[in-house]
Amino acid sequence: MASEMTEIEKLTNEIRAFAQARGWEQFHTPKNLVMAVAGEAGELAAELQWFTPQEADPQALSAEKRRSIMLEIADVQIYLLRLADVLDIDVASAVREKLAINESRF
Amino acid sequence: MASEMTEIEKLTNEIRAFAQARGWEQFHTPKNLVMAVAGEAGELAAELQWFTPQEADPQALSAEKRRSIMLEIADVQIYLLRLADVLDIDVASAVREKLAINESRF
Amino acid sequence: MASEMTEIEKLTNEIRAFAQARGWEQFHTPKNLVMAVAGEAGELAAELQWFTPQEADPQALSAEKRRSIMLEIADVQIYLLRLADVLDIDVASAVREKLAINESRF
Amino acid sequence: MASEMTEIEKLTNEIRAFAQARGWEQFHTPKNLVMAVAGEAGELAAELQWFTPQEADPQALSAEKRRSIMLEIADVQIYLLRLADVLDIDVASAVREKLAINESRF
Repeated sequence: MASEMTEIEKLTNEIRAFAQARGWEQFHTPKNLVMAVAGEAGELAAELQWFTPQEADPQALSAEKRRSIMLEIADVQIYLLRLADVLDIDVASAVREKLAINESRF
Repeated sequence: MASEMTEIEKLTNEIRAFAQARGWEQFHTPKNLVMAVAGEAGELAAELQWFTPQEADPQALSAEKRRSIMLEIADVQIYLLRLADVLDIDVASAVREKLAINESRF
Repeated sequence: MASEMTEIEKLTNEIRAFAQARGWEQFHTPKNLVMAVAGEAGELAAELQWFTPQEADPQALSAEKRRSIMLEIADVQIYLLRLADVLDIDVASAVREKLAINESRF
Repeated sequence: MASEMTEIEKLTNEIRAFAQARGWEQFHTPKNLVMAVAGEAGELAAELQWFTPQEADPQALSAEKRRSIMLEIADVQIYLLRLADVLDIDVASAVREKLAINESRF
């Protein structure tokens, strides 16, 4: 049932449908998608690279800057979910498994 | 009600609790978190950098390599959700807004 | 004597002079510069993310794409030399020391 | 004459010889090398991600941390020079061309 899909599964499906509608599946290889994640993560970092910690404080950011960051977060998330989809990886389980590993380490 | 939280919200809460339990909130500034996202995205890219497209095919990856990639995806996801949490950004809405923008562009 | 400077030292000086002339030294902290390197490296990766290996072959790249990549390489190099300058690190020695380490490993 | 080579050309040759001696040239495609640059840039960023600006001050860094950063700078530099070599791009000219472009912009 669709109602039982998690939000992550829904987003994954929406992102896949977006790619399919444009015939982009051929480009969405694991290698290309990890490059896309790294590329978007670089753009996300660039948003704050010249900000002082004070300027980059969540309360101090302008609405415009906050929106730019939001859209870069979205870009990273889109390619990360697409990569997980292509590799048939459950992101929620992966996060919980990694947290459990970290739990035992820290 | 907790039962109405989306999976993304639940993960966000689990990641926040993990950080709070270790007194790590002071380190989780926007600048530090975008660096962490970029750092983990770099490690994710490194997983496949020397693979040919054939070797990096989802069906061709060994269970061990697939697991390494899964844990790197988790690392990127953890810091991305933590960043969104710190900035009070709704990742699902952000993804849908970005898809709508892309919809009009492509 | 200036004539004894290596090309790397000359470039380092030109990059430093460029920053000084604009009063940008205050922004060139180690944290900010590693973010800038990561940001530019992400843009460099983005240049080739959707290319097949065949399309990304050095002989197959268009003059326009080759130029875009050249300018992204320059951006990474500029911030890398600026970072090394700020930390008083000799890049040529660092490269040779790392090659010697790799020599013993591989 | 070898004595007329710039330091950048010498390093480029040393890096190429290292790769040739191990039969690694086949792996050094433009796509793979931009991924390697992004991967190493991510590791470089990770070196300072949890440091406060004060802790990351050039004078405040421990000898050990400074050395770790030096070796990460070397890794980025090695792959950047290898990429430029494979694409037959002159890094020094590229940097000066980009500085000239920036000169007219800022």
